[in-house]
Amino acid sequence: MRTHYCGELRASDIGETVTLYGWVDRRRDHGGVIFLDLRDRSGIIQIASNPQQTPDSYGIAEALRNEYVVEIVGKVSQRPEESLNSRIPTGEVEIYAEKITLLNPVRKQLPFQVSSADTDPVREDLRLKYRYLDLRRERMANNLQLRHQVVKSMRRYLEDTEGFIEVETPILTRSTPEGARDYILPSRVNEGEWFALPQSPQLFKQILMVSGCDRYYQIARCFRDEDLRADRQPEFTQLDMEMSFMSQEEIIELNEKLVCHIFKSVKGIELHHPFPRLTYVNAMEKYGSDKPDTRYGLELVNVSDILKDSGFKVFADTIKNGGIIKILPIPNGNDAISNVRIKPGGDIFKEASEAGAKGLAYIRVRDNGEIDTIGAIKDNLSEAQKQEILTRTGAKPGHLLLFAAADTETVNKTLDRLRQFVAKEFKLIPADKLNLLWVVDFPMFEWNASEKRLEALHHPFTAPHAEDINDLKTARAQAYDLVFNGFEVGGGSLRIYQREVQERVFDAIGLSPEEAQGKFGFLLEAFEYGTPPHGGIAFGVDRLVMLLAGEESIRDVIAFPKTQQARCLLTDAPSGVDAKQLKELHVASTFKPKL
Amino acid sequence: MRTHYCGELRASDIGETVTLYGWVDRRRDHGGVIFLDLRDRSGIIQIASNPQQTPDSYGIAEALRNEYVVEIVGKVSQRPEESLNSRIPTGEVEIYAEKITLLNPVRKQLPFQVSSADTDPVREDLRLKYRYLDLRRERMANNLQLRHQVVKSMRRYLEDTEGFIEVETPILTRSTPEGARDYILPSRVNEGEWFALPQSPQLFKQILMVSGCDRYYQIARCFRDEDLRADRQPEFTQLDMEMSFMSQEEIIELNEKLVCHIFKSVKGIELHHPFPRLTYVNAMEKYGSDKPDTRYGLELVNVSDILKDSGFKVFADTIKNGGIIKILPIPNGNDAISNVRIKPGGDIFKEASEAGAKGLAYIRVRDNGEIDTIGAIKDNLSEAQKQEILTRTGAKPGHLLLFAAADTETVNKTLDRLRQFVAKEFKLIPADKLNLLWVVDFPMFEWNASEKRLEALHHPFTAPHAEDINDLKTARAQAYDLVFNGFEVGGGSLRIYQREVQERVFDAIGLSPEEAQGKFGFLLEAFEYGTPPHGGIAFGVDRLVMLLAGEESIRDVIAFPKTQQARCLLTDAPSGVDAKQLKELHVASTFKPKL
Repeated sequence: MRTHYCGELRASDIGETVTLYGWVDRRRDHGGVIFLDLRDRSGIIQIASNPQQTPDSYGIAEALRNEYVVEIVGKVSQRPEESLNSRIPTGEVEIYAEKITLLNPVRKQLPFQVSSADTDPVREDLRLKYRYLDLRRERMANNLQLRHQVVKSMRRYLEDTEGFIEVETPILTRSTPEGARDYILPSRVNEGEWFALPQSPQLFKQILMVSGCDRYYQIARCFRDEDLRADRQPEFTQLDMEMSFMSQEEIIELNEKLVCHIFKSVKGIELHHPFPRLTYVNAMEKYGSDKPDTRYGLELVNVSDILKDSGFKVFADTIKNGGIIKILPIPNGNDAISNVRIKPGGDIFKEASEAGAKGLAYIRVRDNGEIDTIGAIKDNLSEAQKQEILTRTGAKPGHLLLFAAADTETVNKTLDRLRQFVAKEFKLIPADKLNLLWVVDFPMFEWNASEKRLEALHHPFTAPHAEDINDLKTARAQAYDLVFNGFEVGGGSLRIYQREVQERVFDAIGLSPEEAQGKFGFLLEAFEYGTPPHGGIAFGVDRLVMLLAGEESIRDVIAFPKTQQARCLLTDAPSGVDAKQLKELHVASTFKPKL
Repeated sequence: MRTHYCGELRASDIGETVTLYGWVDRRRDHGGVIFLDLRDRSGIIQIASNPQQTPDSYGIAEALRNEYVVEIVGKVSQRPEESLNSRIPTGEVEIYAEKITLLNPVRKQLPFQVSSADTDPVREDLRLKYRYLDLRRERMANNLQLRHQVVKSMRRYLEDTEGFIEVETPILTRSTPEGARDYILPSRVNEGEWFALPQSPQLFKQILMVSGCDRYYQIARCFRDEDLRADRQPEFTQLDMEMSFMSQEEIIELNEKLVCHIFKSVKGIELHHPFPRLTYVNAMEKYGSDKPDTRYGLELVNVSDILKDSGFKVFADTIKNGGIIKILPIPNGNDAISNVRIKPGGDIFKEASEAGAKGLAYIRVRDNGEIDTIGAIKDNLSEAQKQEILTRTGAKPGHLLLFAAADTETVNKTLDRLRQFVAKEFKLIPADKLNLLWVVDFPMFEWNASEKRLEALHHPFTAPHAEDINDLKTARAQAYDLVFNGFEVGGGSLRIYQREVQERVFDAIGLSPEEAQGKFGFLLEAFEYGTPPHGGIAFGVDRLVMLLAGEESIRDVIAFPKTQQARCLLTDAPSGVDAKQLKELHVASTFKPKL
């Protein structure tokens, strides 16, 4: 029976005989003495064996190789002065192995080294295929531990301090109007019908509030069948919460305390709250984004009013067509960013272009208020306009002003992207700065140009601001997103709890009364049986842990993630299934493989 | 903002002005004073209003009806002596409502009453359809709370005392050989291929052990698409655990401590461990069941050896055909159980028949060693045989001995069922007795007669006893089930961790090397990269909570269960889906509705 974990042993254990289990992290043969680094979940301890002191273990110690699994019995002893190792917590001691039992060898060549002594980068496809080796590596083992600690701290805060209860909601449920992204599965018992996996427990948590549950949370698995971006997975985990009889202010405050608790208990970091807030309108205006990273400046400046009658046709036409003109002012940008980079073929141009911009105008600010730019702009800029631009952007000699002129969405997308690009290049992001802020007062709806209809910006259960209720189409929502270093890590809202308001919102997004009844009849009906005012929030656990771990991909904080092609390289899922199985489920594949 | 929950208020709060939120549980008009029971998650408090003391609230108090949602502001006061209510914790106080705000009314007739003052039974289909009303009822709210407490106590014990870490495993995974019961879903991105929902995280938790995770747990959702029995659901929850480098004894001990912790922290009950153990062979012999309820006696007695040469043809033929004869001895059974009940048409016969028996022989024990039975038995029973039967069954005058003679499975099934039936009728089950025991040493395999092959009794990753390894077909498994009052609440095993043993087991159940490679190649390969010895267990959370709650259906401890027809009556899932959706997924329904 194990007496200790490897990483726990200290000088105070000297003299004790211990039984350890683990993997051979590294084996070194120092001519006559074999040293093993034995690794388990807790860390590493040095094992030694030589023919004189430990004749019973020397033969087997010689035969061991990296990643063999062993049981080791031996006495903890002080390391000699010259081999003390202050880099590891067990570095004062070592164990002469009286007995080594080989529990399982490695029979194949390792696809990559596990030991953290080996720092070669490993291809991600190999890591995913041999996930069991990848997860043995220190970095990944730490990430799983961190994830566990984050979830644990969430649970404990909500349970012990705030009185939430955890309730499990169904995974087998019903397809919703945003059904195109639902995973669906045929029912064997109910022929011709399908279950859907939930994109979130939204409806069930609202029903729990109608049930008088008062404060609900769940670490909930959610599913979305969409083309995968770098930080999306077909299944993902959210901390899902809902509470009754609370105002937006109360919900935000409770969640700030929760976030402070997580940072404190997991990272030992004291955050201060209340966190700063930005309205959606301000965030879009200043940063072109509803999840701005405000660890650095580079705020955007709107100059539409200055240039609306410009003789420069591009500017004038943009305004005439309902567009806007904004500037990203880059201090000291003149030296670093050449014209070549801004023009077609340049990297700055490429960034802008991928965000939808056709091109970028610019002004270089020189000494004494002089400017450099293309003739068409310079010639059409009055002294007053120039001065106003310089004043409004706070431009100093050396500033580069990048102009985007297009429809609002394209301008914001372009300058948001360039702002992040420039911040990275100019190393404007302080390494250890943590930046948490709320974005509030989102619009209820946005225009879906392809379907020519309004669409709920969050979801159609979001409550409008009371004072905006008479003009729903332009109403602000009682919604709030939490942004952490430029990533949206949480989002929530107060919910509609009155049938007539819900029906008006369904109507606004073009859902007919029949469709609304078919999909959400049970919710509409529930509103008539004493539904309390309620609201909630959901945090993206994968993304939050990724940021806390300092990783760049959520795949590195998920034990068994899918690739960007939605495949599991370990188990090779998805896969074909038996024809018999499909027949029993009353379904057929219509896919015809191309020959 | 809420100042208190309703159920918290006590005499010590007298004089305080409080703000409460909740539902009108009951409203009584005592001519000039209106009393409301206001209910929230925590309990009930009495609210009063009359035109003299609380003119501002009286009008609205009059208009309230059951289940209206309200906010109430008022001062806590002492109830008059004559209206003290010792049955509720808030019974010493009441609140004169200075202000009542109606937050949401009830607009329809309630399908059933919510107040626990109303004890009429409610049809389950109504309860499931209006689940939000059902969950407001005290019994169901308590069940959800209990479930939360059980899961919380599991987590905390495993995390704080035993160093387990929680890891999430995928829900979208790969179909397994027992695939017929898998829920499968088409992949949009990987055309023609399917994901499957896991029946358990078995393979992933074993891979986590290969990953060096050492101790893993998860409250895991599992899925099984089978015809639903009374206590099965398409999706269910298990406490899933796996640990490395531990013996069966160590795993059992750790789990006994876990179970003791749950009972102590949730119910305040001190259990004693070690729990009793039965081998599978003994359990089947004495109780005809591998999950025996040993809160009462009624042990079965095997008399095959006594009757193998009986002149009674039924007995002799049974033994000749490889069957067995066992007796269920029922003390004082003579008076209560007439011949009519044992013969075709009787209730005892019916129970036996539903378990597969063709009929039941019996002996009635009278005074002075006399017996009553049918002539064919009496005439063929020697004095020595009779004496041996009476001695072995411990029969006293008044005993009824029920005989089952058939193949072993039918005999055990029949007498297990009769044993339970009789125990209920004779009220032999002590009301508050808790009965926890382990059944161990299961056989590795059982014979699947319809497929004519061996089948793993637990699953094919279960390790055989070391001493039985040379004859796998008859080997005992290192498997253990925890039985609680006759229900299997947990089951686990040590796992195979060597490739060659795993291959031999796959071979024994008729899985070809190609099939094994196709389905489990990644596991077989993992065994070659340093897999530690490991084992685990899973507890059925739904069933455990059901038993702790004293409920008879797991539907009563699941917030949103499916019916026995695998439907959700609240959301009406499963449902039809758009043709467009199916097309995008490259599937078609082959179900043709009957006209």
